[in-house]
Amino acid sequence: MKLLSFRFEGEERFGPKVKKEEAVWDVLAIQQELEVLPSFPQKLVEGVSEGMEFVEQMRKLIEAAGKSEHPEQFKLSFSDIEWLAPITRTPKNIICVGKNYADHAKEMGAEAPVEMVVFTKTPSTIVGDEATVSVHSDLTEAYDYEGELAIVVGKAGKKIPKQMAYDYVFGYTIANDLTARDLQTKHQQYFLGKSLEGSCPMGPYLVTKDEIPQSQNLSVVTKVNDEVRQNGNTENMIRRVDDIISEVSKYIALEPGDVILTGTPAGVGKGFNPPKFLKAGDTVKVSIESIGTLVTHLS
Amino acid sequence: MKLLSFRFEGEERFGPKVKKEEAVWDVLAIQQELEVLPSFPQKLVEGVSEGMEFVEQMRKLIEAAGKSEHPEQFKLSFSDIEWLAPITRTPKNIICVGKNYADHAKEMGAEAPVEMVVFTKTPSTIVGDEATVSVHSDLTEAYDYEGELAIVVGKAGKKIPKQMAYDYVFGYTIANDLTARDLQTKHQQYFLGKSLEGSCPMGPYLVTKDEIPQSQNLSVVTKVNDEVRQNGNTENMIRRVDDIISEVSKYIALEPGDVILTGTPAGVGKGFNPPKFLKAGDTVKVSIESIGTLVTHLS
Repeated sequence: MKLLSFRFEGEERFGPKVKKEEAVWDVLAIQQELEVLPSFPQKLVEGVSEGMEFVEQMRKLIEAAGKSEHPEQFKLSFSDIEWLAPITRTPKNIICVGKNYADHAKEMGAEAPVEMVVFTKTPSTIVGDEATVSVHSDLTEAYDYEGELAIVVGKAGKKIPKQMAYDYVFGYTIANDLTARDLQTKHQQYFLGKSLEGSCPMGPYLVTKDEIPQSQNLSVVTKVNDEVRQNGNTENMIRRVDDIISEVSKYIALEPGDVILTGTPAGVGKGFNPPKFLKAGDTVKVSIESIGTLVTHLS
Repeated sequence: MKLLSFRFEGEERFGPKVKKEEAVWDVLAIQQELEVLPSFPQKLVEGVSEGMEFVEQMRKLIEAAGKSEHPEQFKLSFSDIEWLAPITRTPKNIICVGKNYADHAKEMGAEAPVEMVVFTKTPSTIVGDEATVSVHSDLTEAYDYEGELAIVVGKAGKKIPKQMAYDYVFGYTIANDLTARDLQTKHQQYFLGKSLEGSCPMGPYLVTKDEIPQSQNLSVVTKVNDEVRQNGNTENMIRRVDDIISEVSKYIALEPGDVILTGTPAGVGKGFNPPKFLKAGDTVKVSIESIGTLVTHLS
């Protein structure tokens, strides 16, 4: 199931994409009108904590809508909604794995790390598909893109064994880990340079894990103004999804709605000579197989 | 006003310390019983966002209780409560300034940084006064203490000018920035080594800023089993409170309830030769003038 969060008539809502249509099922409206279920989450992040049961609930809502007199009334066209990130606010900072592709570590002039490098971005960096983000020219001269597969955690857990890791995944989305390279270096710790306003576009869809059985074999392509910059595949991740969940949860407790960025392949702006940093007017598109394309406009 | 959060009869509550008594005013009970105010926050973190108006509201509640038939019924003895951190859950990760005292930077074998070093700890590291925290011997052989002044943010803001910074401070508390030194080094970024469960004891009080007009002249003393290890003063901070708020908010938006740790003076376990890391059975006491003493037991 492909889920999205959106704003419609000033309200934050969510729902599954209508198959083969550029529209979303307004599941909150279906539930309100047809009273299919005894209760239903008001926010996507709440539903996520119910795991596949939540997906089942949405299937029931769609089925009921399909059988209703006017199914069309429960569909909202993509042209009428404002896209939001699937998870609009994480319960704590976004968790990010650094240098998780050997080719990217190399282009950054670093070795692939022996121990996992983990840093965070504030939840207020989160913006949705088609968002316009400032290049923050008052703060940085080196604003850069990083296309990444993002894991959405569905279940609370700590010290999760690797074999159990996928039980804690609700699904996947795309993230662009926008980074001020000069601040990242200058401040030693990555946090500030990774947390400028709007620096974590996510979306367009949160795809439930049942639709992505092989998350370690997805192409990751990033284009800037239609020039291909990153052309990687999650098969080249040093730490794989199950490894990341197991390793991170050794140290910190995971919660439903937590988002983990899994690192970026080679081809970031800093990796070019001379570097190709982002400019106002640029458009970045990150495409990941089975999920879609996340578009961000720079201003 | 000295505020505390606590658990009483299974419920999370908060209130001001009763002057000259080892007790707390149960302000939620006063409001419920005497209906003094049209409305009153249910959680301390909500009150914080109302700033000094919230302090005024509590003064009114205490006054009403004092004039009531049985004022004593609204006081809870410290012996009957379980202490919680004043802010039990921050809206995002705790923000921490590293190497903010020259003598501490030196003992860590580093220069005092030119640009501010900022990292984070997860909100789930927060525990209260008198908490028992594991030394996490399965994960680290170098669990260390860091006594620090903590700023509690009262107002949302970004790009805050230095002259306006104190408007955004609600008050101050004490934090012990417990750190796994080996993980901090091994993982390059500090985040994981700073975020082990229970690694951010805070309290006992959140003291409102009107009672601490000179936050840059407070002694900071840390004892391990009554041996003085750190004996510093906030006058030696490289980046001062107003500077920290102004600088951090240049990059990230601050929110009410955010907590900023201001760095630790010299005398951490790693600074000794041989190092004096924490062991199960140790007790750490961090005392800051005008606030109190934060006690943590290691197991």
